[in-house]
Amino acid sequence: MKRITILGSTGSVGTQTLDVISHYPELYKIEALAGGRNIALLVEQIKQFKPGKVSVASKALADELKTYINADTEVFYGDEGLLEVAAGTNADYVVNALVGSQGLRPTLAAIEAGKDIGLANKETLVSAGHLVTNLVKRCGVKLFPIDSEHSAIFQCLNGEAHQDINQITLTASGGSFRDRTREQLEGVTVEQALQHPNWSMGPKITIDSATMVNKGLEVIEAHWLFQIAYSQIKVVIHPESIIHSFVEFADHSIIAQLGSPDMRIPIQYALTYPNRLKTPASRLDLTQVGQLNFRDMDYGRFPCLRMAYESGIAGGTAPTVYNAANEIAVQRFLSGAITFLEIEQIIEAALDQHSVIAEPDLDEIMATDAWARATALQYKG
Amino acid sequence: MKRITILGSTGSVGTQTLDVISHYPELYKIEALAGGRNIALLVEQIKQFKPGKVSVASKALADELKTYINADTEVFYGDEGLLEVAAGTNADYVVNALVGSQGLRPTLAAIEAGKDIGLANKETLVSAGHLVTNLVKRCGVKLFPIDSEHSAIFQCLNGEAHQDINQITLTASGGSFRDRTREQLEGVTVEQALQHPNWSMGPKITIDSATMVNKGLEVIEAHWLFQIAYSQIKVVIHPESIIHSFVEFADHSIIAQLGSPDMRIPIQYALTYPNRLKTPASRLDLTQVGQLNFRDMDYGRFPCLRMAYESGIAGGTAPTVYNAANEIAVQRFLSGAITFLEIEQIIEAALDQHSVIAEPDLDEIMATDAWARATALQYKG
Repeated sequence: MKRITILGSTGSVGTQTLDVISHYPELYKIEALAGGRNIALLVEQIKQFKPGKVSVASKALADELKTYINADTEVFYGDEGLLEVAAGTNADYVVNALVGSQGLRPTLAAIEAGKDIGLANKETLVSAGHLVTNLVKRCGVKLFPIDSEHSAIFQCLNGEAHQDINQITLTASGGSFRDRTREQLEGVTVEQALQHPNWSMGPKITIDSATMVNKGLEVIEAHWLFQIAYSQIKVVIHPESIIHSFVEFADHSIIAQLGSPDMRIPIQYALTYPNRLKTPASRLDLTQVGQLNFRDMDYGRFPCLRMAYESGIAGGTAPTVYNAANEIAVQRFLSGAITFLEIEQIIEAALDQHSVIAEPDLDEIMATDAWARATALQYKG
Repeated sequence: MKRITILGSTGSVGTQTLDVISHYPELYKIEALAGGRNIALLVEQIKQFKPGKVSVASKALADELKTYINADTEVFYGDEGLLEVAAGTNADYVVNALVGSQGLRPTLAAIEAGKDIGLANKETLVSAGHLVTNLVKRCGVKLFPIDSEHSAIFQCLNGEAHQDINQITLTASGGSFRDRTREQLEGVTVEQALQHPNWSMGPKITIDSATMVNKGLEVIEAHWLFQIAYSQIKVVIHPESIIHSFVEFADHSIIAQLGSPDMRIPIQYALTYPNRLKTPASRLDLTQVGQLNFRDMDYGRFPCLRMAYESGIAGGTAPTVYNAANEIAVQRFLSGAITFLEIEQIIEAALDQHSVIAEPDLDEIMATDAWARATALQYKG
């Protein structure tokens, strides 16, 4: 029996992780949950999965939560609460499904506590890839990708030697605005941006898909997860999101992973690796899909992806700035404060103003993250 | 250094195997070649690769060959010669690139002599799958598929557990007549049948692609190679021949192998497994291909595939008859003696007249093979 903690249990990946686990009660036990602000849902999850510890965003929410549940579940809150559920339990395995760079410290704490990590929080590796991967090595834990693209690459690498990798290709649906020109992006609404053509996901990642920042974060994440040079990571547009990503080897053989666009497949694989188990996710029938299309990425149309490569290659704190500026820009877009195209302007302005620190430590990363957030918040067109 | 023998060195797969080997003289040494009737090409191969033994189809050809080469290479001929080069050398590895069920005895002899096998001769497994796979197990040798579809499946299974396989899907280009109705198959010529849309291959396999017998042989071969029930093997039409085949696992994740249609990729992989090496074969760029299409197999349009499944499920000597009758039918079609649609009629008639022997031994298989050939030869519309 594997003991699991989920950070971000009330979000899209968190709830789907619990759905996967609910099908295998004999294999998995929930040790702890961190649930943010959705108290009603967290109460349901506590009643069903009976975690020993939970954490919420604030003291007020913690006090409210305690009135709904019994004393078998300890309640924590805030940043300290997140660290407590990440590292202070008997869990073997921590699923980090938090959104944004708040996921970094709990990930590091869980790794130091010797726990394997299922990582859906890509911002962790983007902000501090060298710290996380070095710590994983030092502590001898395993890091499993949950993102569909990285799970695909991870599966394609099964039984293969790292030295035989020629190129990794991440596929991109193109997001909600893939068929619009840059001119047609003027004045698009939040509601339009939230209509992803293939995947049902949380709001932040859906906006990131429309700007192609999401693919940029994935490129940087892939660099760290698979220890591959940026020159060996490629992105192609694949509108159907059926081939989730693929690897070309030295012998020009390509291995690809395909499936229905259902996050429960990569989530479950991150838990069951190296084995596979039955799933409620639907089967993929390629004859029903009929046709798969591929076209070159247009970096002029999607400058956020270009900036991701540039940040990644610059290294040090550059990806931290890229990520933090984007987080604030997306929040400002979702709240109606800025236009869609201002998201990329904010990221570009923050990167322009930043002097990169090479090999930053955690304090330098956190300071850079805070600086980039403040810069992005103050940006006025 | 791996010592290699090639049976069928002057054919399509044989010459491509030598091409692969010529790029890695430090890794591979040719021990022996069996070259059939193309003496001119065999002389070139002997001069370049300096095998210790060679075999040709007849005594007359052997005598002729000796006049062109020096005494460092021993010359054998006929069925005995084939067995001598298959089993009577220091080779570690025998590539069987023979065409048709003549490949069976040399394969069995090589396995008994403890040699690993690279198998391009699918008729071996179709005619006598249970004998070959049992002998492989008993002798502790390895059997590597060279066919592009089976190499694809083999690669997709890297690092995976057999029990996690849900379904294997072989892709079929549809062959040279894929866009014709059955009515439009009346009166097609040999030249038309030899125009394969994607692959450049020998004449027998090109005709087998047009009749879909080739995919039928592959289904039976996959059954034996991967020890999978026929109900778990599916065929889909994929005109571009880019996805060479794929595996669906218990968790509905699909792993696929893709590549340029160049046989040197699967040939090389069968030699280098589990490693991969650089190749002169061209890279595959999916954005250049642009589009991949898939449609359901139509068993009414391609009755030879239906008969392959039926033969496989019937088991025993049924696939032996299917294969042997087809070999003769293709020869008769290529020589102009029968029409294209009579190929399937000959196979069907032979299967109808045959009483299946369960668990046949080698003598029963050879007798059945001979009977089916005679029956197919005598068939008159």
